[in-house]
Formats: sequence, C-alpha cells, structure tokens
Amino acid sequence: MSRRIHLALHPYGVGGPGQHGLWKDPLVAKNASIDVNYYIEQAKAAEHALFDALFVVDSQFINSTYPSHYLNRLEPLTLLSAVATHTKHLGLVGTASSTYNSPFNLARRFASLDHISAGRAGWNVVTSFDTGTSRNYGLDEHLDYTTRYGRALESVQVAQGLWDSYEDDAFPADVERGVFLDPSRLHALDHAGEHFKVAGPLNISRSPQGQPVIFQAGVSEEGRDLAARVAEGIYAPGGTLESAQEYYADIKKRTAAYGRDPEHIKVFIHGGPIVGATDEEARRREREIFEEDNDFASNLALLGRSFGAYDFSVHDLDAPFPDVAHLAEKGGRTGAGKIIERAKAEGLTLRQVAESVNAFRRSPFVGAPETVADTIEKWYDAGTLDGINLAFRNNDDLGRFVDGVVPLLQKRGLFRTEYEADTLRGNLGLPVPENRHTVARRSVND
Amino acid sequence: MSRRIHLALHPYGVGGPGQHGLWKDPLVAKNASIDVNYYIEQAKAAEHALFDALFVVDSQFINSTYPSHYLNRLEPLTLLSAVATHTKHLGLVGTASSTYNSPFNLARRFASLDHISAGRAGWNVVTSFDTGTSRNYGLDEHLDYTTRYGRALESVQVAQGLWDSYEDDAFPADVERGVFLDPSRLHALDHAGEHFKVAGPLNISRSPQGQPVIFQAGVSEEGRDLAARVAEGIYAPGGTLESAQEYYADIKKRTAAYGRDPEHIKVFIHGGPIVGATDEEARRREREIFEEDNDFASNLALLGRSFGAYDFSVHDLDAPFPDVAHLAEKGGRTGAGKIIERAKAEGLTLRQVAESVNAFRRSPFVGAPETVADTIEKWYDAGTLDGINLAFRNNDDLGRFVDGVVPLLQKRGLFRTEYEADTLRGNLGLPVPENRHTVARRSVND
Ligand SMILES: Cc1cc2nc3c(=O)[nH]c(=O)nc-3n(C[C@H](O)[C@H](O)[C@H](O)COP(=O)(O)O)c2cc1C
Ligand SMILES: Cc1cc2nc3c(=O)[nH]c(=O)nc-3n(C[C@H](O)[C@H](O)[C@H](O)COP(=O)(O)O)c2cc1C
Repeated sequence: MSRRIHLALHPYGVGGPGQHGLWKDPLVAKNASIDVNYYIEQAKAAEHALFDALFVVDSQFINSTYPSHYLNRLEPLTLLSAVATHTKHLGLVGTASSTYNSPFNLARRFASLDHISAGRAGWNVVTSFDTGTSRNYGLDEHLDYTTRYGRALESVQVAQGLWDSYEDDAFPADVERGVFLDPSRLHALDHAGEHFKVAGPLNISRSPQGQPVIFQAGVSEEGRDLAARVAEGIYAPGGTLESAQEYYADIKKRTAAYGRDPEHIKVFIHGGPIVGATDEEARRREREIFEEDNDFASNLALLGRSFGAYDFSVHDLDAPFPDVAHLAEKGGRTGAGKIIERAKAEGLTLRQVAESVNAFRRSPFVGAPETVADTIEKWYDAGTLDGINLAFRNNDDLGRFVDGVVPLLQKRGLFRTEYEADTLRGNLGLPVPENRHTVARRSVND
Repeated sequence: MSRRIHLALHPYGVGGPGQHGLWKDPLVAKNASIDVNYYIEQAKAAEHALFDALFVVDSQFINSTYPSHYLNRLEPLTLLSAVATHTKHLGLVGTASSTYNSPFNLARRFASLDHISAGRAGWNVVTSFDTGTSRNYGLDEHLDYTTRYGRALESVQVAQGLWDSYEDDAFPADVERGVFLDPSRLHALDHAGEHFKVAGPLNISRSPQGQPVIFQAGVSEEGRDLAARVAEGIYAPGGTLESAQEYYADIKKRTAAYGRDPEHIKVFIHGGPIVGATDEEARRREREIFEEDNDFASNLALLGRSFGAYDFSVHDLDAPFPDVAHLAEKGGRTGAGKIIERAKAEGLTLRQVAESVNAFRRSPFVGAPETVADTIEKWYDAGTLDGINLAFRNNDDLGRFVDGVVPLLQKRGLFRTEYEADTLRGNLGLPVPENRHTVARRSVND
C-alpha cells in the first residue's frame, strides 16, 4: 500500500465559522462568498496544485445575531456545476442536507453534476447542523437525531438505488434497428422505507462515476455509524493527535464491521495550515489571524450556534457557564457536549468559554514548509488521516502552502505529481460501483 | 410602444415530446440531452443571434413505455448554472415544479443562478404535468389542480418574499467601522400560509435582478389565473391564429384585472419554425420531419401522457376513442379535454387520435425566410404574441432561421440589432422590483 495523502480545498469566501475578521482582509473580495468567479479561481488554483477536490459546505439558516457574513452564500450544487466546466480533474464535493430535501431531487441533482463534470461529483451528506433550518421548511422543531440520521441513511440508499436506474448499456441508440432505449435495462426502484416512498426510475442515465462519491461529516454515534455504512469520504473534526487517532481507528473499525474495506473510506481531517518562511513567521501569522477573528460578540454567537442558535447574551458573562445541557441535544450534540464538559471540568465562566471557542479550532499544521510537511507526515504515519481538508485565509496563505509544502510532500512520495485519473473516484482510489441490476442479471445467467 | 418581438431558444436535445425520431438525425449527438457541451453550444448560438433566453423544460417522471429518449435529462438549474459562465447576455429560464419542491430551496437555487449569471435567471413555475411524479415523492396520487396551483402561487409569493430578505445596502462591508452586515437591512419573512410555513430570511443576498423573472406555462383556468397574478413571461400553447389571439387577449385582460400592467407579462408562443430556401423546400422539410417522428407506438404513449401516463394499448385501436374523461383531471386537463372533445366531434377511433396527436403541434412558421418573417409579423400584429419560443431539430434548421429570418425581422424593426441590457429583465423590458422593505422604510420616513 502506497503512502498517499489526499488534499481537498475548502474555500472560505469572506469567512467560515470562526473567521469573523476575514472579510476585512484586503486580499479577499468583499463579495467573495457569492461570487462565482472567486470559486472558479479557487478551483483552478486547487487543480493547478493537483488537489483531489473542492469542498463546499452549506447551511440554510441565518439570523441577524449570527456572525452572518459567512452565511450569505451560493447554493452548493448550482455553484459547483458552474465550476465544473472550468476544471478537468478536480473533484467537486457539495454539501446537501438529507433532512430538508427529497432523495429523488438530490439524486438527480448530483447525477447531473456528475454528468456535467464528467465524473467528479461528491455529496457531503449532512443532517443540518443549524437547527433553525427547520423553520424554513415548515417545522417548528429540528428533527431529532434518530430521525435525521435515519433519513440520511435512507436518502443515500434511495439515491444509490436511483443512480442504478439505467444500466450502462441502456442506450444502444441503434438507428438501423430503430432502438434508442433498451427498456429491459431501465429499472424502477419501488422503494418503500421508514422515511421515504420512491418509485423511480430516475430520469437521468447512469453517470460517469457509476455513483457520485458519498461524504459525511458527523461525529456522534449516529454520525459515525452512517459514515461506516455508506460514506466513502469523511470530514473529520481534527482536534489533538490522540483524539484524531481515536477517531480514525474507530471509523475504520466500524467500516470493517459492516463488511466494507476500510480503505474505501477516506478520512479527511480539517486543517487550516499556516505556513511562513520560518516557524517564527508562521507563528506570527497565526497570532495575527487570531487577533483578526477575536471579536467577542461574534464568538458568543458562534458558541450559541452549537446550542441551536441560543442567545447566550441573556446570561451574566462572568457567572459560571450556564446550564444549557438541554440545548445540546439539538444540532451537534457531541461538540456541544464537549464544551459543557470542559466548562465544568475547568470551572469556566461564560466569558471564558466564549473567548476560547474559536481557539479550539487551531490547526496542528503551523510553521515553515519543512515543519508543516514533517507534521503532516507524522500525523499521517500516526494513523489520523487519509487526507486533509485545507482552508486558507487568502491566496497568499494558499500560495505559501502550495509552493512550499506540496513539493516537499511530493518529494517524500506522500502526494501525487500528476493526476491518476479524470474522476474523483479515480483520484481517491475508490472503486466504481457496478450497477446492481447488471450484477443481478449476470448472476442469474451464471 | 415599439414593435419588438422576443425570441427564446428551447433546445430539444435528442427530442422533446413528439420528436420521436429526432435521435436518428445524424446532426444530433446521441447523448445531446445529457451533454452539457451541447447546451453550452446551443446557448452560444442563441446569444450570437441576440435571442432573449434559453428555455429548459423539465419533468421528473419516466416509465419504460414512454417515448423515453427525451426524458433522460439534466436537472435544469444545475445545467443552467454551467451554461451561465459561458454566456453574458442570454437569459436562462429553468423549469422547476412547485408541487414537488420546497419554496425555500427553490428560492435559494434561483437566487444563486441569478448571482452566477449576473442577473439572467428565470423560473418557469410548473405544477408538474407528469402525474407519475407524485410516486417519486412519496405520494400515491398527483395532487389535485386546486392544491397544485395553490402551492404554485404561494411558492412564488414565498420565493419573492425571501428574495427581499436583504436590502441592497445590507452589506456596507465597512472595515473602518467594523461593520460587514447591517442587521437592520436583513428581514425575516415569517410566512405562514395555507401550504407553507417559512420563517426566513434567505441566506443569500439580493440578486442582480432584484428577483429572478417568473415564467408560467399553464392553460387551464387555474394556470391562467396564476400567470395573471405573478408571471412576467408565459409559455403559451400556440394553436391556430384565432385560438392564440383569444389566449393572448385573455391573459392580458386577466393581468390588467389584477391591477398589473399587461405589458409586464410577455406571451411567448411555441413555434418550431421550419425554414427553407423556398416555401416548397420548407414544406418538404416539414414532411420529412413528420415522417421521422411518425412512430405509432410512441404517439400512443405520447397520447397517454396527457391522461396520467395511461396505457392506451389495452384498448381496441379501431374502436371509437375510449371513455377516459375521468383521467383528464390529472396532469393537464385542458389539453386532455380538447382531445376528448375532438374525438367525439369527429367520431375518431383511438388509432386516428393517436395518429394525429403529433400533427397537432405543427408550427405556423413554415416557408422561405420572407414567408416566415411575414407570418411572424402577421401573428405579432394580430395580437397573438410578444415572443416566440423557438425549437429546432438540428443546427442546420437553427442556422436557416438565424441567417434567413432574423435579419428580415431586424430590417423591419421587429427584432433587436444589439442587446439592450445584460440582464434578462433588461432585455425583456421588465422593471426591476424594488425591495419591499426599502419601500416600506421610505414610506415611513416620508
Ligand atoms: C469539516 C466539517 C464540515 C462540516 N460541514 C457541514 C456543513 O456544510 N453543513 C452542515 O450542516 N454541517 C456540517 N458539519 C457538521 C456535521 O454535519 C455534523 O452535524 C456535526 O459534525 C455534528 O455531528 P453530529 O451530527 O454527528 O452530532 C461539518 C462538520 C465538519 C467536521
Ligand atoms: C411551451 C410549454 C412548455 C411547458 N413546459 C413544461 C415543463 O417543462 N414541465 C412541466 O411539467 N410542464 C410543462 N408544461 C405544461 C404546463 O406546465 C401545464 O401543466 C400544461 O400546459 C397544462 O396546463 P394546466 O396545468 O393549466 O392544465 C409546458 C407547457 C407549455 C405550453
């Protein structure tokens, strides 16, 4: 097995969660988050650097107290298909919620993207972290974990079933015989499950990858279980080397327990590398970034996001962290639970928790190019990652990683020097799933 | 008021309803319907010819007896955003069903397309003609007319409300004051209607056109009412000069009755012009096309499409047209009703009805360039159209219209010689709706 690290680029636009001050950066256009040209340029830079994929996150909720500059955004699939025709090799992974979408609709939109990109589509299946999303879809309350993750699993299964509607040889398009479609190669799904009833077939032929690649980003029990069952890529939360090792091993073990090859799920940890000419310079840049983002009101709102957009400003900032355990059951209970645990263990006030919520996200990959390459190699060898989900503040930060670190990884044989394939599956080393109906027919004929 | 005709291009791919033999045309790639490059080329040709818009139809249902080659297709919004970055002036009108989509989702996808295209998005609001769609969305039966058109109206109203979430000056992005978003310019919707509950706000800023342009394509009472209330463009069924006059006058009258300027709804009639060097040559091409498409089984299936994908092959072909009035209440009752009426009035057999179902669709615009230009002018002056929704078999047919007819229309002052604007609203002569919250605030201040 070759030592190979996969790299994805996660464009921040004017800011992701926590990048409260990024919009002030003179190198970032004020409208970056809604400017398709920004994304096309980021994608071209990522492809030039031989990255595996562009990864676009999503949310469908804002309110006016949120650090809302980063929530004004383009819908991921519309965005990615615009990017598709300006790139040739780069994977295009879009986030879409299985909680507030119908699987038929999702299946055809991702199949369309896979056709448009000639085999580079990926679906990051989320259950919607922002609980307020429910009120944009007619529900007073966000669905509970069991329902959300139940829908997520069934959505993927339905989509994969629909993606097999047409066998690869469904369209002989034989003028002489007058046969365009061979109806024996078109299959209804007739799915009737706990959450969905979907007759099928899908009205789009099988896409170049057979099936778009499934990504997942959950950390709870339910999230890990979903990943182990169906995900081929996972966006892992990162954390310390030890917590990342635990997470990685757990995901691989669970995947194997479902009878799947653990190599067929790629763990991408989140890393916002900060590279400088020297370690010292990189540390300086890190502090600069920390200061840029260090806005108390925004951090308080960010903290609230983990508790269902809870407004913490109603509490005394200097009293002990309030009892909000009942709110942790909402969008992301694992993250929320960790915050409560830590506040209790260290006896922190609300102010202290809010001040540190952003510091939590520090990247392990900070330093001169050699240092960053060493750290990545160390983390890779320690069994924490198959890939890194890279996010940069601006093009200078991106450039320092691409020009400084990538060549070192290549020299060490840890990163490709040319694309292996034109499809996302090909570059990630994932197999193309065979059409289930083709398989079934062959086994009958045997 | 200047005499100006608007032109839209409706790309067939390997076939639309009725184009059963088009896939055999050597000038049409066998995978055209799912090839983004085909659409990009069509869009570029349309833009080169100064057309107003590309119009992409949609359906979410197939079965194996359908003339199914034309139902293998890309999802319209994913498709149009890929096309957007390869064009500059051309409007991009995508069909999306309000019956099987949530308005929040639709609102953000069309707003995204409007941003990506810098102001060229249009939404053709349909209630889903194909009744079988329901079974891909968990419902055993297609929703009834009242519910479907009720949802359609409310969906548009919700979307338009969401599109006003951010006022135009919502993002001062003022580094000195440290203000990216002005929260007083961000507005929740708090809609609670008969069909939808949507809190808002939308998580995407106001798009270049203020609001994407609303198109509609219904012909029933409910459909016309919806158009008169909210549509800014309408895809009309065509028919005879007299029926088109009746339809046009009716739509304009209804629009005025809702207190709207009847010039703010543009009626596009469907026309597949056939142009030849001489009238005789054009007639020959028309017969050739008729023969190419004249496939009995496909026509029978096409007939069934108007009756909820009803399988007419169970009936005696040479007996009188069967009593299927109870099925006419489904997808498109006006069209189905007309078929029944005609069969009764003329005493037709099932075979005769099936044989003529496709002949119904003949274009009035057939002949040498002068003849076609004359006919278009005549129809325009007779008050039947503001625009034509053009569909061609192949690029040669398109070329004969663009090179032969368009210059004549231009010479007569009936068609532009350069784009008036970069937005679809601008080229259609439609006003940019002002943000309702800006209006409200101004009137309070007055
Ligand atoms: C790197 C990363 C990216 C994520 N992207 C999204 C996203 O785009 N949209 C979303 O709703 N949630 C996103 N999440 C949140 C997860 O989907 C999930 O809700 C969260 O990690 C909590 O896990 P749980 O649902 O298993 O409790 C992301 C999480 C991680 C770690
Ligand atoms: C030119 C034209 C284009 C249409 N495009 C679509 C379409 O893309 N998808 C769809 O479901 N229906 C489409 N329709 C059907 C209409 O939305 C409508 O269902 C049909 O005309 C019957 O009208 P009614 O619903 O008012 O009875 C189209 C109709 C016309 C005339």
